[in-house]
Amino acid sequence: MSGVKIALDVFGGDLAPDVNIDGAISILKEERLDLELYLVGKEEVIKKLLRDRGFTHEKLHVIDAPEIFGMAEKPSAILRKKDTSLYRSAQLVKEGKVDAMVSAGNTGAVLAVALFVVGRIKGVERGAIATPIPSKRGFTVLLDCGANVEVRPEHLRDFGKMGFHYAKLLGKTSPKVGLLNVGEEEEKGTKDTKAAFEMLKETLGDSFCGNVEGRDILYGDVDVVVTDGFKGNVAMKAIEGAAKFIGDVLKSQIKASGFAGILGGLLLKGAFNRLKKTLDPSEYGGAFVLGVKGVVTKAHGNSNTLAIKNAIKVAHEGVKGKLVDKLQKEFGGN
Amino acid sequence: MSGVKIALDVFGGDLAPDVNIDGAISILKEERLDLELYLVGKEEVIKKLLRDRGFTHEKLHVIDAPEIFGMAEKPSAILRKKDTSLYRSAQLVKEGKVDAMVSAGNTGAVLAVALFVVGRIKGVERGAIATPIPSKRGFTVLLDCGANVEVRPEHLRDFGKMGFHYAKLLGKTSPKVGLLNVGEEEEKGTKDTKAAFEMLKETLGDSFCGNVEGRDILYGDVDVVVTDGFKGNVAMKAIEGAAKFIGDVLKSQIKASGFAGILGGLLLKGAFNRLKKTLDPSEYGGAFVLGVKGVVTKAHGNSNTLAIKNAIKVAHEGVKGKLVDKLQKEFGGN
Repeated sequence: MSGVKIALDVFGGDLAPDVNIDGAISILKEERLDLELYLVGKEEVIKKLLRDRGFTHEKLHVIDAPEIFGMAEKPSAILRKKDTSLYRSAQLVKEGKVDAMVSAGNTGAVLAVALFVVGRIKGVERGAIATPIPSKRGFTVLLDCGANVEVRPEHLRDFGKMGFHYAKLLGKTSPKVGLLNVGEEEEKGTKDTKAAFEMLKETLGDSFCGNVEGRDILYGDVDVVVTDGFKGNVAMKAIEGAAKFIGDVLKSQIKASGFAGILGGLLLKGAFNRLKKTLDPSEYGGAFVLGVKGVVTKAHGNSNTLAIKNAIKVAHEGVKGKLVDKLQKEFGGN
Repeated sequence: MSGVKIALDVFGGDLAPDVNIDGAISILKEERLDLELYLVGKEEVIKKLLRDRGFTHEKLHVIDAPEIFGMAEKPSAILRKKDTSLYRSAQLVKEGKVDAMVSAGNTGAVLAVALFVVGRIKGVERGAIATPIPSKRGFTVLLDCGANVEVRPEHLRDFGKMGFHYAKLLGKTSPKVGLLNVGEEEEKGTKDTKAAFEMLKETLGDSFCGNVEGRDILYGDVDVVVTDGFKGNVAMKAIEGAAKFIGDVLKSQIKASGFAGILGGLLLKGAFNRLKKTLDPSEYGGAFVLGVKGVVTKAHGNSNTLAIKNAIKVAHEGVKGKLVDKLQKEFGGN
């Protein structure tokens, strides 16, 4: 097998195209992964950016896509915009010209091309966005983070299966899967969560640890938390807001401590930096759209160079670890 | 009007009865509020605890209730356990013998006595648990935090109205109310959230600021966040878990910094304490069950003395501010 072929949507993300180009260069410079990178977007701009940086590499290719899909555009519009860097990246996956794609673009649009251009795995009714979030367990995979605002119990069961394999790919040897609920007791929740509970128990056996609560996402003994895309999105963003708020209060309290604050801040600089690094989602390389016939990695909209680089790494792992094959087998399709 | 009469469930909460007694003593010692306190629970135990502390006060009364309702019991069982301190507290409200009750007991059971003993306000179909959470805006009221795992759009509208008045009671002059959703755009969400959006706009006018996202609970420009009890519960607990996780990482990173960590930690002790105080829900005195014909305050299950004291304060404000009257007028009942 030659190198893993990955398409990078150069014009997706709030800081595109610069950080995307820098992320690509950075990973090729490392020379640690066996990959071929396809930079998708306005050819002349990409070539100029590479020239500006004095970078050439035999494993770096440019694929022209003259249009850009905006971060605030209505996601479904992507399906008519075939000349965008995002659509074309998905098309390369679909046509088998690359093994994976990475985009930091409009989440809804990435989801749309994943589902409708790359296409769903046979047997999977709903794709899901799975996001690894820094937690007490290193990280915890939360899914669905926003692909489906409403689901049926069997979709939650499927998310559990997909999340299990994804967590394994990311390095968890025997992932524990929990169902997000308002309490741990089996009888908690709605008719739908109760039905999903039974299905998950039957499908995952001992890997299913039952109901978990919101606090368990970061602070519980669980590796994969399964829920619908509404609650997953709310929980993920609530955690993000909490981290920002706590960071702000800490900074302002240190500032208010005068000279002791300045000195204390200097002494703890390393600790604060490691805290920031621990909480930084960039370290985890972004989310996967699970359930589609290709590796589709979604980096955070405000990805920096590190986040893009890590998203490419995770996409590479997804291909090497044969995630799609595993899910296809799991769902009995081909 | 004589003092505000408040019943305290002395045997509710993980740290009961000691912190409950201490909270009651502490607020009476302050002599700042015009109140009469009714300590509800095992009479001989309460009297012994008061004797141990050498405390007597003319405004302190003991109401015997020989049973205790456990924190882990099935909530609905409370309705058959009329001799528990929790049930009897609610009965005192129902009979008009007190103006308000405070409990740190089993949340579901507090909700049950609020709805079925104290009773719903005419015109309110669903009661809601409203929790003030420390945020960028000082605090943000989240409701429903777990009373109703499923709701209809008109319930969300009612929560919006109740949350608005509750936030005013807590000191927000002109509260902004938002609807929790997966994005800010009007077309986001489910059929139900779209219907609720229209109803909230019509009912609250300019006080409704539209859809808000999970991150806005702590980090947005909104005072009241309306959602169903499932999502509210998930969001509240996700934030709680995030705060715990961040605190743990910070501590362990400071510890890992050796001597600089010890010194820096000492210098920033004041800042860390103020951070902790800012994030401490005890400072906000607990949640209200809104929509019932009496002031029912629910303190956190692991309330300490300060939390109990603040819960009594908030109950006092609820009575003085005529919250129930206002909601009765709002819902056209009496």
